[in-house]
Amino acid sequence: MANNRVEGDCAHLPFTKIVEAASVLAGVIHRTPVDYSRTFSQLTGSNVYFKTENLQKTGSFKIRGAYYKIAGLTGKQRSLGVVTASAGNHAQGVAYAAARAGIGATVVMPVTAPISKVEATREYGATVVLAGQSYDEAYGRALKLQAQTGAVFIHGFEDQEVIAGQGTVGLEVLEQLPRLDAVVVPVGGGGLLAGVALAIKTRRPEVKVFGVQSAGAPAMYMSCRDQRWQESGPVCTLADGIAVCRPGRLNFELIRRHVDEMFTVDDEEIARAITMLLERSKMVVEGAGAAGLAALLQGRPSLPGSHVAVVLSGGNIDINTVSILVERGLLRSGRRVSMRALLDDRPGALQGLLEIIASMQSNIISISHNRVDPHVPLKKARVELLLETRNREHVQDIMAALGGKGYEVWKN
Amino acid sequence: MANNRVEGDCAHLPFTKIVEAASVLAGVIHRTPVDYSRTFSQLTGSNVYFKTENLQKTGSFKIRGAYYKIAGLTGKQRSLGVVTASAGNHAQGVAYAAARAGIGATVVMPVTAPISKVEATREYGATVVLAGQSYDEAYGRALKLQAQTGAVFIHGFEDQEVIAGQGTVGLEVLEQLPRLDAVVVPVGGGGLLAGVALAIKTRRPEVKVFGVQSAGAPAMYMSCRDQRWQESGPVCTLADGIAVCRPGRLNFELIRRHVDEMFTVDDEEIARAITMLLERSKMVVEGAGAAGLAALLQGRPSLPGSHVAVVLSGGNIDINTVSILVERGLLRSGRRVSMRALLDDRPGALQGLLEIIASMQSNIISISHNRVDPHVPLKKARVELLLETRNREHVQDIMAALGGKGYEVWKN
Repeated sequence: MANNRVEGDCAHLPFTKIVEAASVLAGVIHRTPVDYSRTFSQLTGSNVYFKTENLQKTGSFKIRGAYYKIAGLTGKQRSLGVVTASAGNHAQGVAYAAARAGIGATVVMPVTAPISKVEATREYGATVVLAGQSYDEAYGRALKLQAQTGAVFIHGFEDQEVIAGQGTVGLEVLEQLPRLDAVVVPVGGGGLLAGVALAIKTRRPEVKVFGVQSAGAPAMYMSCRDQRWQESGPVCTLADGIAVCRPGRLNFELIRRHVDEMFTVDDEEIARAITMLLERSKMVVEGAGAAGLAALLQGRPSLPGSHVAVVLSGGNIDINTVSILVERGLLRSGRRVSMRALLDDRPGALQGLLEIIASMQSNIISISHNRVDPHVPLKKARVELLLETRNREHVQDIMAALGGKGYEVWKN
Repeated sequence: MANNRVEGDCAHLPFTKIVEAASVLAGVIHRTPVDYSRTFSQLTGSNVYFKTENLQKTGSFKIRGAYYKIAGLTGKQRSLGVVTASAGNHAQGVAYAAARAGIGATVVMPVTAPISKVEATREYGATVVLAGQSYDEAYGRALKLQAQTGAVFIHGFEDQEVIAGQGTVGLEVLEQLPRLDAVVVPVGGGGLLAGVALAIKTRRPEVKVFGVQSAGAPAMYMSCRDQRWQESGPVCTLADGIAVCRPGRLNFELIRRHVDEMFTVDDEEIARAITMLLERSKMVVEGAGAAGLAALLQGRPSLPGSHVAVVLSGGNIDINTVSILVERGLLRSGRRVSMRALLDDRPGALQGLLEIIASMQSNIISISHNRVDPHVPLKKARVELLLETRNREHVQDIMAALGGKGYEVWKN
C-alpha cells in the first residue's frame, strides 16, 4: 500500500543522522525543559522527569521531523513545495516548518479535524484542503495533489529524516538528565519512539526504553508482541495523536531492535493522567502526550527508585475535551456530586432541602425539579442536583445530613 | 494596625539583598523558563515573553520570599519555628521552605480556603490550623499563636527579606532576556512588584516596569494614583492570589519610587486571559497570574514592537474554577451554544429537530423538553439545547438550517 511506501531504509538509519538533525534544529525549535515532578515521583515511587514537548513550538514534537525533512530538500524540490495529510500535530509541524523555510505547503485535513487545529495550520501559512471523513481519505487526496503538482510528500512518521528529527528528543533528554535509567515514550505510527530509542541505545545502551500505546489503537504493541508487523482494526481512542491503524514498517524494525518493552493504557487511564497533569503540574497535555504517564501511574513499567524520563509529546487537546475531562474528574474525586432526592410535593419542601445544602457549605451548580414523571410517587417530587463539594467526605456528610432530616437521597 | 507592622525599613531595601537572595535560592527553586509567545505577540503587537512562575515549585513565586526569609533565621528562631496566615500560595511557599530548612511551620488558613490548597500545604509538612471566615480572622489567630509560641511570623508581602526574595524574579528576567523594554507584574500586597521593580530599575533603569491589579481589589492602584497609601473596601475578584485590602506600606513606597504606571483589569478580562493561556500556551495559570497578560491584551500598556516580559506569577487555580471558565469561554467563542426551540407537540417533532442538528455535525451535550410550562403555547413544546459547535459561523448555520425547516429557535 502506498500508505506504507518505504522512504529510505529506516532499519539502517544511522545514529549520526539524529546528531545532524539536532544541529539543523538548533535555534529553530525550543529545547524544551525537563522538569522533575515531586507529585508524580511520590505517586509512582520513581524519580519522574517530564520532557515537556507540549511546550514545543506548534504544541508538539512533530515540528522536529518535519523541519529536518524540509531543511534537506533540494532547490528544485523547494520550488515545488510540500504536501501532507494529517488531522493534527504533523499538519501544524509541516505548516510551520515550510513557512520558516519559505516554501509552499498544502495540508489535506479530514473534514472531521478539530476546527482549532485547522485554524492553527492555516495561521502558520499553509494551504489547508478539507477532504474526506477520515485520515485515509485525506491521505488519498494528498497523494492525488502530489501527483498533480510534483510537490514532495512529507509522511508523518515513516520517513528516515522524520524519524531522525524526532530522535533529537532522545538526545536532549540524555544531555538534560545525566542520571537516567529509563525513558517512556507514547507511540502511534512509531516515529518518535523509533528515533528516541535509536538515540538512547546508541549513546547509553543501559538506559531502558519503553513504548506506550493506547489500547484503542494498539497496532505497534501487537506487532511487537507477535514479532511481526501488523495493522489494527478501526481505532477508537481519546488520544487522537496516536490513533494510527497502520504503524510504520521500518519504525517497527527499529522499535523491535531497540525498545525494551511495550505497554498499553486505556482511555480512562489517559483521562486521569490528563486531569492530574492539569491540576498538579499546571500543564495542558493532550491524550497522546499523557499516555506515557498514564502507563507509569499503573506500574507499567514499575521502576521503584529509578530515574525515569516521561515524554509529554504534545499539548494540542481540544478545549471542549478538556472541559469534559475536568468535569468527569471532579465527579470522580468528590468535588462535584450528582444526586437525586424525593421530596414531599408541598410548598417549602425544596427550600428546606436547599437550606440544608447551604448550611453544609455546598454550592448548587444545577437543579431540576419534577413532579409529573410517572416514576415519581404521587404526592412526591423528584429533584436532580449537581453540587460543588470539597471532597468525597464532604459528599458523604451532605448525604448524611439530608438523610438525617428525612430526605430520601441517592447519588447518581 | 498589627497587620501593617513594619518589618525593617523596606523603603531603603538595598538592591544587594536581592542579589544575596538569588544566591541563597540557587539550587533550591526552579529558574523558571522565559518563553516567547508567538500567539500573544501577534495579538498585542509587542514581542511577548512569559516568565513562567506558574511552573515554580509550590506553583507560585511565593516560595522565593518565604525561603529566603526562613534561611536567614537564627538557630534560636529556627527552634521556635515559624507561623503565618494565608489562604493560598504563601501558605504553600512557607510550608515548603520550612520543611526544606527542617523547622516547624504552622499555617493558619481560613475555613473557606480551597481544599486543594489546604491539602497541598499539609502535604508539604506544615501544621494547618483552619480558623476564621476570612484572611483577616485567620491572621488574628496566627498572631495569637505567635504570641503563645514565640514562633517567627512570616508576612506574605510586607517584609524586607520577602520582598528581596520575590525580587529575584526580576534578576532572572534580566539575565534571560538581554533584549528587554518592559516588564508587567501582577500586584496584590505588592511584594513581587516592589522587589522586581527594585531589581530592574537598579540594573537597567531604562526598562519600564508596570503593575497590574484586579479592579475588584485595587488598593495599590488607588494608592499610586492618589500618591498616598490607602486600603480598599471589601475585595471581590476571580484573582484570589491578589485579593488584598491592605497593601504593604513599604511596598507602596518602593512601588511609588520605581514603577512607571499601574493598571487595573476586570474579572472578565482575567477570565479570557486564563482560557487563552490554557488553549494557546498549554499552561494553567491562576487569576492573579494571568492579570498582567489580561492588561496587555487590553492595550494597558500599549507597547507596539517592544520586548515585554509578562510575569505569570502562579498556577494554583481550583480545577472547579477552570471548568467554569472553560465552559464560559466555549460559549463565548461559539464552540458551544445554548438555544431553545418551540416544537409542535406531536410524535416525531423532537426527532426531526435532532436529525437536522445531527446533519449539521453538531453534538448534543444536554437537552430538556417541556410542554407543561404555562409560557409555552398550547400544542407546542419547548426544547432547551446545549450543543457542541465548531465556531460562531457553525452556530449561525445551525440556527439558519432549523429556521429553514420551520422551527422557531432562539439563542440563549
